[in-house]
Amino acid sequence: MIKLYWSPRSRSFTAIWLLEESGLPYQRVLTDINTGAQKAPDYLKINPMGKVPALVDGDAKLAETAAICAYVADRYPETRLAPATDDPKRARYLQWLFFGPSCIEPALIQLFTKLEVPSRMAAWGSATQVFDVLDAELQKGPWLLGDHFSAADITIGAGLNQAVRVFKMVPPRPSFDAYIDRCVARPAFQRTEKIAAG
Amino acid sequence: MIKLYWSPRSRSFTAIWLLEESGLPYQRVLTDINTGAQKAPDYLKINPMGKVPALVDGDAKLAETAAICAYVADRYPETRLAPATDDPKRARYLQWLFFGPSCIEPALIQLFTKLEVPSRMAAWGSATQVFDVLDAELQKGPWLLGDHFSAADITIGAGLNQAVRVFKMVPPRPSFDAYIDRCVARPAFQRTEKIAAG
Ligand SMILES: N[C@@H](CCC(=O)N[C@@H](CS)C(=O)NCC(=O)O)C(=O)O
Ligand SMILES: N[C@@H](CCC(=O)N[C@@H](CS)C(=O)NCC(=O)O)C(=O)O
Repeated sequence: MIKLYWSPRSRSFTAIWLLEESGLPYQRVLTDINTGAQKAPDYLKINPMGKVPALVDGDAKLAETAAICAYVADRYPETRLAPATDDPKRARYLQWLFFGPSCIEPALIQLFTKLEVPSRMAAWGSATQVFDVLDAELQKGPWLLGDHFSAADITIGAGLNQAVRVFKMVPPRPSFDAYIDRCVARPAFQRTEKIAAG
Repeated sequence: MIKLYWSPRSRSFTAIWLLEESGLPYQRVLTDINTGAQKAPDYLKINPMGKVPALVDGDAKLAETAAICAYVADRYPETRLAPATDDPKRARYLQWLFFGPSCIEPALIQLFTKLEVPSRMAAWGSATQVFDVLDAELQKGPWLLGDHFSAADITIGAGLNQAVRVFKMVPPRPSFDAYIDRCVARPAFQRTEKIAAG
């Protein structure tokens, strides 16, 4: 059975939401980062970065939240969380799956630390650009791939919810509000909120 | 035919190397970032971030270097650049594919800007941690998945070559040197160096 190593109130939220959406049986293994459990030797064999979340599925083990989403969605096509590899939507799916770590995360670091990097050199351009691009995309809706809710919505939706509503680092915009509302309305999201609170 | 939008001496290097390794026919479309070609309205329809590289393959279009690698490797299994979705190696493959944008890129920004972020909160921990983890992994070799050279080696290898040899932002280590040497020895890498020089 899939094992998810997680800690309350952390990036584990995204991975829990994914598994709750998937309908797959899985076991949560509490790895409380407040107790240092993420630095225990046995856990470092799963994720040498000593961070949560991480996932073990038989012989397969991996960390990095977006990679966990990619893995589960492709390994279990019955979850319908990823377009097939020969579906033209696959390209946009992957772009948005990588947009979280590649663009949204550094944009948030930039906002948080008031970092100045020339936009031409910054892989994410600028925080403004990242949220403008996302805004334009989310105006199309309802999901990033149109009617198909996918794992990309889980990474982007969880990130946007954190950035806009939880940490209030990014000002709300109508498209963000509507999209986050659609995410929050999902039963799997609501179960995740309860679980991730710890 | 696959079209790759690229610019000399940029992150396009990784995408060119991927396509050179793939053996697939493709066309390079010069999109010179020194002339502002990446901000032309038609190009923004391909990548609204106005950055290179981007890839168009029939109806599929996408940006984000690591996403392009993921797309091509899965769409064309004959390239053998990704383990199949039911191969247990798939998990580590995805972890390393996301490790570039999730960990190496922010580590380099941190080194470049001398940014201070508590390692617990930073998605990449710290630059030291990122390169220690990579060092331990690369000591196993020859490739990230053992004997199987994959698209993950293309993203990590290109990034490490830039960080260690081109920009000298990261001090060399024996495992890095041996790995970069193995990458550089590949005929596709050598063709890419000529092409990417512009
Ligand atoms: N790049 C990782 C980041 C994971 C991460 O930063 N996890 C934090 C919690 S949100 C953590 O485990 N911190 C504990 C520590 O570093 O000791 C991912 O995307 O999963
Ligand atoms: N996150 C993107 C970053 C791409 C990127 O930053 N490209 C730079 C060249 S290395 C660019 O196009 N800069 C031109 C500009 O921003 O105007 C990726 O991984 O592909």
